[in-house]
Amino acid sequence: MVQGRRWVLKQHFKGTPKPEDFELVVEELPEIKDGEFMYKSLFISVDPYQRPYTDRIPASMFPVTMMGSSVAVIEKSKHKDFPVGSEVLVYGGWVERAIAKPEDLAMGQGASISKPWVYPKINGISSSMMLGACGMPGNTAYFGLLRICEPKAGDVVVVSGAAGAVGSLVGQIAKIKGCKVIGFAGNDEKVGWLKELGFDSVYNYKKISVTDALKEAAPDGVDCYFDNVGGSMSISILENMKNRGRTAVCGAISGYNEAGAQKFRDILALTIYKELRIEGFYVTRWASEYAEGVQHMAGWITKGDIKVRETVVQGFENTPKAFFGLFDGSNTGKMVVKVE
Amino acid sequence: MVQGRRWVLKQHFKGTPKPEDFELVVEELPEIKDGEFMYKSLFISVDPYQRPYTDRIPASMFPVTMMGSSVAVIEKSKHKDFPVGSEVLVYGGWVERAIAKPEDLAMGQGASISKPWVYPKINGISSSMMLGACGMPGNTAYFGLLRICEPKAGDVVVVSGAAGAVGSLVGQIAKIKGCKVIGFAGNDEKVGWLKELGFDSVYNYKKISVTDALKEAAPDGVDCYFDNVGGSMSISILENMKNRGRTAVCGAISGYNEAGAQKFRDILALTIYKELRIEGFYVTRWASEYAEGVQHMAGWITKGDIKVRETVVQGFENTPKAFFGLFDGSNTGKMVVKVE
Repeated sequence: MVQGRRWVLKQHFKGTPKPEDFELVVEELPEIKDGEFMYKSLFISVDPYQRPYTDRIPASMFPVTMMGSSVAVIEKSKHKDFPVGSEVLVYGGWVERAIAKPEDLAMGQGASISKPWVYPKINGISSSMMLGACGMPGNTAYFGLLRICEPKAGDVVVVSGAAGAVGSLVGQIAKIKGCKVIGFAGNDEKVGWLKELGFDSVYNYKKISVTDALKEAAPDGVDCYFDNVGGSMSISILENMKNRGRTAVCGAISGYNEAGAQKFRDILALTIYKELRIEGFYVTRWASEYAEGVQHMAGWITKGDIKVRETVVQGFENTPKAFFGLFDGSNTGKMVVKVE
Repeated sequence: MVQGRRWVLKQHFKGTPKPEDFELVVEELPEIKDGEFMYKSLFISVDPYQRPYTDRIPASMFPVTMMGSSVAVIEKSKHKDFPVGSEVLVYGGWVERAIAKPEDLAMGQGASISKPWVYPKINGISSSMMLGACGMPGNTAYFGLLRICEPKAGDVVVVSGAAGAVGSLVGQIAKIKGCKVIGFAGNDEKVGWLKELGFDSVYNYKKISVTDALKEAAPDGVDCYFDNVGGSMSISILENMKNRGRTAVCGAISGYNEAGAQKFRDILALTIYKELRIEGFYVTRWASEYAEGVQHMAGWITKGDIKVRETVVQGFENTPKAFFGLFDGSNTGKMVVKVE
């Protein structure tokens, strides 16, 4: 028999995660069955998302193996796609050694990610990088920045949590794309490293307000914001964006240890949990198509598909009164003033 | 000489707009010059946007003709494109009779809207509708819903401020597109009218909580939200959206009368003022492209364009400790645990 160790989460975190939330379990592993393999982790990934995700585990499931991915070497196998000796990325939790049935690990929207993957060995890419720059955080930076923020050469890109696994890659990808990159991090050592990486401006947000920093580094405003932290820092950055700026909300670590209900009242956190897109607009955006829009509306109205109601206030002298009525619900449909 | 009357805004609104903010000015109008015309308003538009927009008028400009558009008939003209007797949409403020120089009224992003427009007369479309369903509010509903929310047949669409100039059109356009439409309005008369219009469910938000209403009308969640009100109602609707839901933020009337700074701390209001796009995401969205993302990242790393740093915690038994470190800034770059 072979011994395996795994970290078990005993309960939901309350506030900041604590040692007593976990227990190290040592157990004898059974023989593997057809379609299974036994693996030994080389590196285990710890990630901020694990804090909010564990909140969703039904209480009845505790104690449960702590979620997470690892890169591992296969020690025994009865699955033809996962031969002994191969290295594999496996979403099997915080385990030192365990048995996996690949098909059972492939779940939901991310099935093609959560299914164990015998990754290609690439010269210069260490196994641990498959958990980082060439793994989930790397792809988060790559797709999140390029697909959501859509940065163009010359754009001003701001990254919060800039020295983290994702942020440090986001800034470097933005530089490759020809952007001006501004990073925020939480100590001077991190600031120094990010400057070495080529970030144009980096600030220790504990020493300077975000607003002052952006006044200096982005006087004309911010085009793209890649948000890893949420909370008040993000609001300050949003306030300094240019019109039509794009924000990719990747993380909200500043709020992850807040109590349940509070966390979900934060609109930025909500956008992550539900992958929402929120976009403000003025109709002037479609100014060049204005007459076409009117034609469409007029067509529906004359066909009877759309019915129109107006609240008509009589007399030019009553124009302010009509205006006041907008704010106490006086109008149904469009409020207009008939001049005479 | 001809007499003209106009409403002048004397100062910035403080809180709710009040009669003493305005003054009615009567004046003799001069003769028109080349390139000008004199018009008499038939209908004047009052719109919620005028409340926040006037906040941006420099104090030194007061007193100033109150902003707004009207439909008018041209009484005199020295401009070949604007003949006497024609009807025109003019962005000239709250004026009964005034002189306009069309080229001076065309400004900024919305130049092709703010320039006076001799609109086509369409059978069945009244002049006043050019300020409503066939004007700015109509196009706001048309483009805002179709371009930002991108509703598909069968989608659940929620509209707040549903009985307003924009909301009542949004719901009807969504019905034309085959959606299920849920509206919120502020009194029972409005609720009744919206039901007549074919809205599937309409609620008086003063009588039922948004959460309870959506539990009943949208038990599987909301695909599209067209937001006219902002504030706590919008947060409740956002909480009830489906994954990947789309919100078009058109208005935030619930906060328009709040004090200046407070208003801008509201993320939804900010998205309007700057036309921002904010989108939350999980990397699983690009699961089918996962390996390609890794290849891109690996390519940049091996070429030296991207530099990678890891914070490595030694020993499987220290995995929780590594996790705790994510929340106090212990890591620079990716945090991993080296199992042995």
